[in-house]
Amino acid sequence: MFKELAYYDGKIGTPDEVMIPFNDRSHFFGDGVYDATIGGNHVVYLLEDHLDRFYTSANYFDIKIPMGKRELGELLTDLLRQVEGETHFVYWQVTRGVASRNHAYGNDMPGKLWVWIKPSKAGDPNEELKLIVRPDTRFQHGNAKTLNLLPAVMGTELAVRAGADECVLHRDGLVTECCHSNIQILKDGMLIAHPDDQFILRGIAKTHMIEACRRLGITVMERPFSLEEMYDADEVIVTASSRMCQHACEIEGRKVGGKDPETLHRIEKEVIQEYLDYTGKATLLD
Amino acid sequence: MFKELAYYDGKIGTPDEVMIPFNDRSHFFGDGVYDATIGGNHVVYLLEDHLDRFYTSANYFDIKIPMGKRELGELLTDLLRQVEGETHFVYWQVTRGVASRNHAYGNDMPGKLWVWIKPSKAGDPNEELKLIVRPDTRFQHGNAKTLNLLPAVMGTELAVRAGADECVLHRDGLVTECCHSNIQILKDGMLIAHPDDQFILRGIAKTHMIEACRRLGITVMERPFSLEEMYDADEVIVTASSRMCQHACEIEGRKVGGKDPETLHRIEKEVIQEYLDYTGKATLLD
Repeated sequence: MFKELAYYDGKIGTPDEVMIPFNDRSHFFGDGVYDATIGGNHVVYLLEDHLDRFYTSANYFDIKIPMGKRELGELLTDLLRQVEGETHFVYWQVTRGVASRNHAYGNDMPGKLWVWIKPSKAGDPNEELKLIVRPDTRFQHGNAKTLNLLPAVMGTELAVRAGADECVLHRDGLVTECCHSNIQILKDGMLIAHPDDQFILRGIAKTHMIEACRRLGITVMERPFSLEEMYDADEVIVTASSRMCQHACEIEGRKVGGKDPETLHRIEKEVIQEYLDYTGKATLLD
Repeated sequence: MFKELAYYDGKIGTPDEVMIPFNDRSHFFGDGVYDATIGGNHVVYLLEDHLDRFYTSANYFDIKIPMGKRELGELLTDLLRQVEGETHFVYWQVTRGVASRNHAYGNDMPGKLWVWIKPSKAGDPNEELKLIVRPDTRFQHGNAKTLNLLPAVMGTELAVRAGADECVLHRDGLVTECCHSNIQILKDGMLIAHPDDQFILRGIAKTHMIEACRRLGITVMERPFSLEEMYDADEVIVTASSRMCQHACEIEGRKVGGKDPETLHRIEKEVIQEYLDYTGKATLLD
């Protein structure tokens, strides 16, 4: 059993053991896409959804994943079994290939598959998040989950330095998403969520939370919301596959949310139940 | 002597020999910046300018280059001496460091230096370029020369597939730059060049061409120009450190330029002379 597992193009080891060729195109262009989820009870949570998104990201940037969806699903499940622990962060990516540096790549470059799995924890829904806010300066391909993440790195680092958990991004006052999660608000019993366009990643946790709302009879409005609406919201909900559904208590030092805990808890409960049913786990937190 | 040289964090070899640790942050975030120039006669052309820009890019993204400017200059010069040939492509980059994947990076991460040198050719000023045009969807940090290059990869690939040399990018009809070069126009004896703001990289070849124009008494207007102005220009000039100063003859299948060859050739001659003086080479092309 591994404490932490790394995989590159067929080689398996610890992250210290696995080495990458100099000419992998991730090195010069960030030329790859990824996906990630939580593993519970050695089950890759929402595997099919994440595989669908992964192949969609790769297809969008014309990157060839070197195996089929089913084979990759089996590989991830097999690798997860080899790592100690009850709850994991399961991460995988494909880079365009290995070739001498050249922007153009031609037609027949087989992608390189990477996997990284480490023990982790589910997000505690009782934990209240603190957020900061910055302009969204990212490129217009947020729909694909790429390795071009410098703005997300910088925003997250700013959040950490400010003692916060995440950084909310906005374009001209309209909230898009956070640096590595989606953000939604509750207002007057409705969920307001940014539509899945070029400015945000379609979070799998977001998609499933929206489906939970629909099951619960909660109206979902897919439209951008403003910074003012966010500060004034009844609840501010942050979703990510590795953290599931959490809420914010403070943004840029201002108290937010806390005005509709009942709807918030109904959504949280539904989201957590889906995770427990899927993974066969008895509790969210180990 | 190497036919082609790779360097990572103190290790030197061929690109096939040098391997990169799994946890280098280039792998997950494209978390690094680079610079590149031409080497002539085993002299790194405009070394000081490229080092200044490299340290400025790194500083902008809070990346720590693991050595001083002078030491890096000596290293590049020393490595260039070890590669066969008369003219080279000299490329180097710094990645933020090696650490388990986490967007936030903290304060004390020493950067990892990479170098890649291969035989190359100077750009032939008599070669006429064909260009295509696409919307500029990139992030708003074009001033720094980063490894987040997916849009540049895709634009270049589209150009190659169309039988063209480069892809011109525009924001709402205003030209910014090409995927891996700057673009300028001549109109009525003046050079019009995009100002060095967040939307373009300050090309060293561009900077030196502008200085050449000033020496030659040619007025330089630093302002964005429209697609219409580009199609209607007297000459369309494409600059890059590895290709120097070239001109376009066709954009999206439409004939462009060719209306002020005298001014074009005066600029080209001045730019080439600076290269010959700096490197001590007798001719531009080997």
